[in-house]
Amino acid sequence: MLEELKNEVYQANMSLPKLGLVTFTWGNVSGIDREKGLFVIKPSGVAYEDLKPDDMVVVDLDGNVVEGDLNPSSDTPTHAYLYRHFKNIGGITHTHSPWGVSFAAAQMDIPAVSTTHADTFYGDIPCTPALSQEEIQSAYELNTGKVIVSEFEQRQIDPDATPAVLVSQHGPFTWGVNASKSVYNAKVLEVSAEISYHALQSTRSDIHVPQYLLDKHYYRKHGVNAYYGQKKSSFC
Amino acid sequence: MLEELKNEVYQANMSLPKLGLVTFTWGNVSGIDREKGLFVIKPSGVAYEDLKPDDMVVVDLDGNVVEGDLNPSSDTPTHAYLYRHFKNIGGITHTHSPWGVSFAAAQMDIPAVSTTHADTFYGDIPCTPALSQEEIQSAYELNTGKVIVSEFEQRQIDPDATPAVLVSQHGPFTWGVNASKSVYNAKVLEVSAEISYHALQSTRSDIHVPQYLLDKHYYRKHGVNAYYGQKKSSFC
Amino acid sequence: MLEELKNEVYQANMSLPKLGLVTFTWGNVSGIDREKGLFVIKPSGVAYEDLKPDDMVVVDLDGNVVEGDLNPSSDTPTHAYLYRHFKNIGGITHTHSPWGVSFAAAQMDIPAVSTTHADTFYGDIPCTPALSQEEIQSAYELNTGKVIVSEFEQRQIDPDATPAVLVSQHGPFTWGVNASKSVYNAKVLEVSAEISYHALQSTRSDIHVPQYLLDKHYYRKHGVNAYYGQKKSSFC
Amino acid sequence: MLEELKNEVYQANMSLPKLGLVTFTWGNVSGIDREKGLFVIKPSGVAYEDLKPDDMVVVDLDGNVVEGDLNPSSDTPTHAYLYRHFKNIGGITHTHSPWGVSFAAAQMDIPAVSTTHADTFYGDIPCTPALSQEEIQSAYELNTGKVIVSEFEQRQIDPDATPAVLVSQHGPFTWGVNASKSVYNAKVLEVSAEISYHALQSTRSDIHVPQYLLDKHYYRKHGVNAYYGQKKSSFC
Repeated sequence: MLEELKNEVYQANMSLPKLGLVTFTWGNVSGIDREKGLFVIKPSGVAYEDLKPDDMVVVDLDGNVVEGDLNPSSDTPTHAYLYRHFKNIGGITHTHSPWGVSFAAAQMDIPAVSTTHADTFYGDIPCTPALSQEEIQSAYELNTGKVIVSEFEQRQIDPDATPAVLVSQHGPFTWGVNASKSVYNAKVLEVSAEISYHALQSTRSDIHVPQYLLDKHYYRKHGVNAYYGQKKSSFC
Repeated sequence: MLEELKNEVYQANMSLPKLGLVTFTWGNVSGIDREKGLFVIKPSGVAYEDLKPDDMVVVDLDGNVVEGDLNPSSDTPTHAYLYRHFKNIGGITHTHSPWGVSFAAAQMDIPAVSTTHADTFYGDIPCTPALSQEEIQSAYELNTGKVIVSEFEQRQIDPDATPAVLVSQHGPFTWGVNASKSVYNAKVLEVSAEISYHALQSTRSDIHVPQYLLDKHYYRKHGVNAYYGQKKSSFC
Repeated sequence: MLEELKNEVYQANMSLPKLGLVTFTWGNVSGIDREKGLFVIKPSGVAYEDLKPDDMVVVDLDGNVVEGDLNPSSDTPTHAYLYRHFKNIGGITHTHSPWGVSFAAAQMDIPAVSTTHADTFYGDIPCTPALSQEEIQSAYELNTGKVIVSEFEQRQIDPDATPAVLVSQHGPFTWGVNASKSVYNAKVLEVSAEISYHALQSTRSDIHVPQYLLDKHYYRKHGVNAYYGQKKSSFC
Repeated sequence: MLEELKNEVYQANMSLPKLGLVTFTWGNVSGIDREKGLFVIKPSGVAYEDLKPDDMVVVDLDGNVVEGDLNPSSDTPTHAYLYRHFKNIGGITHTHSPWGVSFAAAQMDIPAVSTTHADTFYGDIPCTPALSQEEIQSAYELNTGKVIVSEFEQRQIDPDATPAVLVSQHGPFTWGVNASKSVYNAKVLEVSAEISYHALQSTRSDIHVPQYLLDKHYYRKHGVNAYYGQKKSSFC
């Protein structure tokens, strides 16, 4: 079942090592079929060089395995929670990419300091508060989803416009209209973190881009007035 | 039309990923035929692995497409403005290379701190002032060209001797006698920024090379008395 | 003799350059046959591209060569001492990987600042005290083993739960249930050091993860209640 | 003439890009035949992918071309001066490797902070004083050789034990018993600089290794009592 989606999710997972975003098995991508209410995700702890499209696991929105011989990613409850609450997203990527994790370890947002960031993310990439002891000890991966959604709600951040988060002391989750786009956003997060780190070390001051530059670059690539690239799309 | 130039510009664009200067589609190179008053530029948002010489777009000096099925780079008005005002240049490169963007985000010039810089750039690589809200909201890419040219005029920097700039909060533009040379300069900018960053972090003081070292290294490679390499050229 | 182990240790050594953990010949991996009381180790100073499985040297637990035409790694007495005192380990890796060596040169522990670290190491990776002049001038490599074991005893660190150390001013040693797992741990140490460095530079404060996050991530991958990956193992 | 040496010097030059030590043409290696009093050096400004063994230029100890159609490296007078004054050396490498240049731009020695450094260099890698305006404007490359030799004499550094220098605001020169060994030393300098930078940023204090650790590691690999590797050699 869902052969096309499995292949798409497989390809998206395989692009993680090509983009330098994973060490060993530390990353996973999923993609959802919204009509069927099922998503496809990488199996847990399988090396990328051994991965095959048929290894992808089909899971329902409560995180129950519907098809597949292997255990799904241990982060499956986080993916499921995000799909349930961020209604427009079609794919999710989690990595331990080192620049992103460095900001998560520092418990800092990745500030929007250049157009490289603003082309993809409409503002700072938020770092969640740390999970409490209780949240970590019971239903940890579910609570990881909850702290993400709660942070976006509290800060009134639109998850479609800023499709990325850092889980405190853990690392990046990104999403997008499909699996492939969520990987794209994972790479932009990593490059943006690298740039922000060096710019912050150089200046040790607030170097946010102004709102109007954020608007210009974000809407150059997104929305009905986008004019970057070859086709207009509501979310490039 | 302009088949040779298209191929040259195509090759120059393809050298960007080889030199580690681009992520995804974030970079573009153009080259000009001064006699015809036309330039050739990468189409907007096309992946490098899909690019073909025939995809290159021919544009006139007002930025109007003369030939080509694809949209030209969204930065085309910047290229056109630079070609109109920097009369000797034959090629332009724009990238989001991370060290260059880090300095742009910090709104700092890349200071000339070593002969690696001085061999190619006759002084600091200037970072422009930030564009105003009005400049960003209307004719943004044209105004990007204007702020570059205006900065070179105000600081009295010769664009042939310092063929590179950082647009504030955005990133590098470099140029040269042809497309290929503008890519070369984009790489030197990136390496120079990396070196300057580490040297500045180590010293936290003014470590500019003296004028006479700048003269020595710059003119060892440029001008009638150049003696580096196999052929004398007015601009290597 | 020990053909299978030799091949396993050979493969583990060859994975060091693939993982970007060695420059030239600066690294070695060994693996032990606990029943026979013999271990197999890389020969000293042989380039990885020239290495063959048959070049591996068989050594007893006092560090005496039992089989092999080549000199064993000069670090053999360190390996032997660790095998004698850390009873559960099956493989040892030593590298000069640059992020690990940077912390060793700074004589700093690698602090546990993220789940990337906690997934593999149950706490900070300790940096030993510097060896004394006398310890260095006589039986240096043996004393390197002694300072490691002594530091784990004094700090009451379980070497099976934190299978890694930095020897002060020198570099990392890691271990595991077999040769391959010790290389895995060498890579995690390197990535963890890179992340910790950038997070520490960003915050310049104590950013340790809390004990309960350490517990959660460590035991998600280790022990009888592990649920990461496809198979439960007492030490993944 | 000198076909074997030309091939050896060619191979040594080609290893520079493989080791990540050069950008474009910014590096050169030479090797000397002490009996004939002639050395072989890379031609100036030729791309590595175009280089052939026959392109190597034969030069005498005054820097005059003896054989070869191409201009020798513009740094030839520096090489010649070093060969005249450092009597035991058989090969010289010059690069603009970025970590080395960062220390040169900061006008800082690369301090010996770990055994990675001490295994190859018997103490800090000195950074020369800046050349004066007069030294730069006349016979610049010759004066570069002079400032190196003078610095070693004034600091009483043995060039055979510390086969490397940073020319202030310029970059590294390294040497060794032959061309290949001088390239090896150029790589060790680069790795040592990277490690020293990060350790210095972490501690901002004096973290030199003690003399007895320097002695131990240096003489483990060098001199009559060396025991690293497969063969004893007076200068590995």
